[in-house]
Amino acid sequence: MDVSGTSKNCEAKRSIRVAVDAFGGDLAPAEPVRGACEAAGCYSDTTVILVGRGDDIKRELDALGDVPTNIELVEATEVVGMHEAAVTALRSKKDSSIAVGARLVKEGRADAFLSAGNTGAMVAAGTLFLGMIPGVLRPGIAVPVTAIDHPVVIIDVGANINCKPLHMVQYGVMASVFANEVMEMQNPRVGLLNVGEEERKGAQLQKKAFDMLQDAPINFVGNVEAHDIFFGGCDIVLCEGFTGNVLLKTCESLVQKLLEFLEGEIKRSIRRQLGFALCKDVFKAARRVGDYAEYGGAVLLGVDGVIIISHGRSDAKAVKNAVREARSTLKLNVNEDITEAIKGVEKSVDVSLNGSSGAE
Amino acid sequence: MDVSGTSKNCEAKRSIRVAVDAFGGDLAPAEPVRGACEAAGCYSDTTVILVGRGDDIKRELDALGDVPTNIELVEATEVVGMHEAAVTALRSKKDSSIAVGARLVKEGRADAFLSAGNTGAMVAAGTLFLGMIPGVLRPGIAVPVTAIDHPVVIIDVGANINCKPLHMVQYGVMASVFANEVMEMQNPRVGLLNVGEEERKGAQLQKKAFDMLQDAPINFVGNVEAHDIFFGGCDIVLCEGFTGNVLLKTCESLVQKLLEFLEGEIKRSIRRQLGFALCKDVFKAARRVGDYAEYGGAVLLGVDGVIIISHGRSDAKAVKNAVREARSTLKLNVNEDITEAIKGVEKSVDVSLNGSSGAE
Repeated sequence: MDVSGTSKNCEAKRSIRVAVDAFGGDLAPAEPVRGACEAAGCYSDTTVILVGRGDDIKRELDALGDVPTNIELVEATEVVGMHEAAVTALRSKKDSSIAVGARLVKEGRADAFLSAGNTGAMVAAGTLFLGMIPGVLRPGIAVPVTAIDHPVVIIDVGANINCKPLHMVQYGVMASVFANEVMEMQNPRVGLLNVGEEERKGAQLQKKAFDMLQDAPINFVGNVEAHDIFFGGCDIVLCEGFTGNVLLKTCESLVQKLLEFLEGEIKRSIRRQLGFALCKDVFKAARRVGDYAEYGGAVLLGVDGVIIISHGRSDAKAVKNAVREARSTLKLNVNEDITEAIKGVEKSVDVSLNGSSGAE
Repeated sequence: MDVSGTSKNCEAKRSIRVAVDAFGGDLAPAEPVRGACEAAGCYSDTTVILVGRGDDIKRELDALGDVPTNIELVEATEVVGMHEAAVTALRSKKDSSIAVGARLVKEGRADAFLSAGNTGAMVAAGTLFLGMIPGVLRPGIAVPVTAIDHPVVIIDVGANINCKPLHMVQYGVMASVFANEVMEMQNPRVGLLNVGEEERKGAQLQKKAFDMLQDAPINFVGNVEAHDIFFGGCDIVLCEGFTGNVLLKTCESLVQKLLEFLEGEIKRSIRRQLGFALCKDVFKAARRVGDYAEYGGAVLLGVDGVIIISHGRSDAKAVKNAVREARSTLKLNVNEDITEAIKGVEKSVDVSLNGSSGAE
């Protein structure tokens, strides 16, 4: 296991180095390049390294004009497509921007890597190249989202679809550190997403996780349902990756559809258009649900380095915010604190509940 | 196994008899009693049987005044609470309205039973008292919902949280019959809810189900994501009960929260209130999402009888629509057609893919 990532994170002497995949996401390379430049302009203590095809990046930089001096460029000739099979793509495209970016972190040439590209490839690159924080069994994708009027962190949204109870407990611990330090949530309330709020609900995974979570060194508030997510019943939502993925995408698609529908309906009459013009500022908030541009992106918690996975449709603002998120995660030594917190799990939780197949 | 339910469904000579749990749901007994009377008033060929504490029901009927002659009353002295453990409650409360209502169907005294009460107890009562349609392995809850501007059927939303691939295939077959006949969807497109649209996505359950579904006698359109639900990519969404439950509740809570938030924001300025007054008709449609009052309720497909589970907050209109839905399901011989369709599954699908633990 490569633990260099953790030790690098606490070198406060030199500037922070954040690698940005210039070829990740639907709006690449224009928006990642622009976002990287905006971040570099904002954070003079940070070097932003653009990873991708140099010629294309230079063209984008030229178009922007004034390029901050703390922007660097690292060549990567290939791109992993948004729908390519992750592990296969990583192996066959050794010079892809995702592979190169993750290797920069592994080799200590960058402290963090962020991409709006293929999520599966980012998870694979993080896991294979950086290895895990000692004691962590599986990485989990933690996504800070706006539940209309307040932030909530959902973990896992798809890194691990064969989740064991102990993975879930570790997710609770890691997300608590992240939410507390980066999201500034005091003693965040951790809820287990379930099909009812009563005890003994759900499949074996949820029942065992519930039992273990009660002893875990976190602020566990029991089972939660969707209502609790939107009406303030918890700060962190624990779920296995399949359900979390469906939850996140449902929020995003439902809000998108609702807004498109309203827009279409409003256009159908002058009276409605007039009314909408007077109150449309109210609807801005709605657009933020399921959109994690504001927070920067999802964090791949558990890997020994800082990996941020931004939304596929990330614009410059989202990329800039993702750089900010990477900086915070580094400056606050989140991974060091996760390393310590994970040690507390085995002391407090009956890990035998996890079953023989899951402890690995 | 009791197959009398199926044979009863096709006796067209006598009137249809629909039992309604007068003590099911948050608004009982007032709204179920009122809805039952409205349905009886509408459908002269249908006898509506109110099940519950006679004194309370009579008081509600007296308050309504004119009671249709095709309303009957069957006494049940107990009520299963909304949060009671289902099987335990059914066993200890043998005279609960849910137990009595399900037994009416079992004994041929009613053709269908509907309740807005405890979902788990309704599933248990349906399964234990009525048994399964021959060949069906597990019942599934099919919910017709409005995806903003079009109907979609989601199955399963929580009857079966230990789902096997073959259960999923049977859900696809049963929901196709239901959607085609009751929802009048021509050749409904069945999608497998997954974490991506490409093949080979998901856990073992989804991968095996995908392979089997390709050969199933339905219009299988492959993997779908939330986007397809809201943007017209499929008519039926197949998922195991845990994910389906989260999906349904997320839609409902998100829309509720969004509308409450908008309402609160609008009240904060006269200008906004004025604007809203001019375009608020547009927002009515939004309220219908995740609200299955319009269609009447969820159907417990696979049990040998007609069991409708209405929303816990069902009002008289929802109860009335649930009676209409029960009538359609009976008149169209949905269970007979499911019995036939299920026979086609083993002929077309490689059931060995289900694994030894799932075929039962």
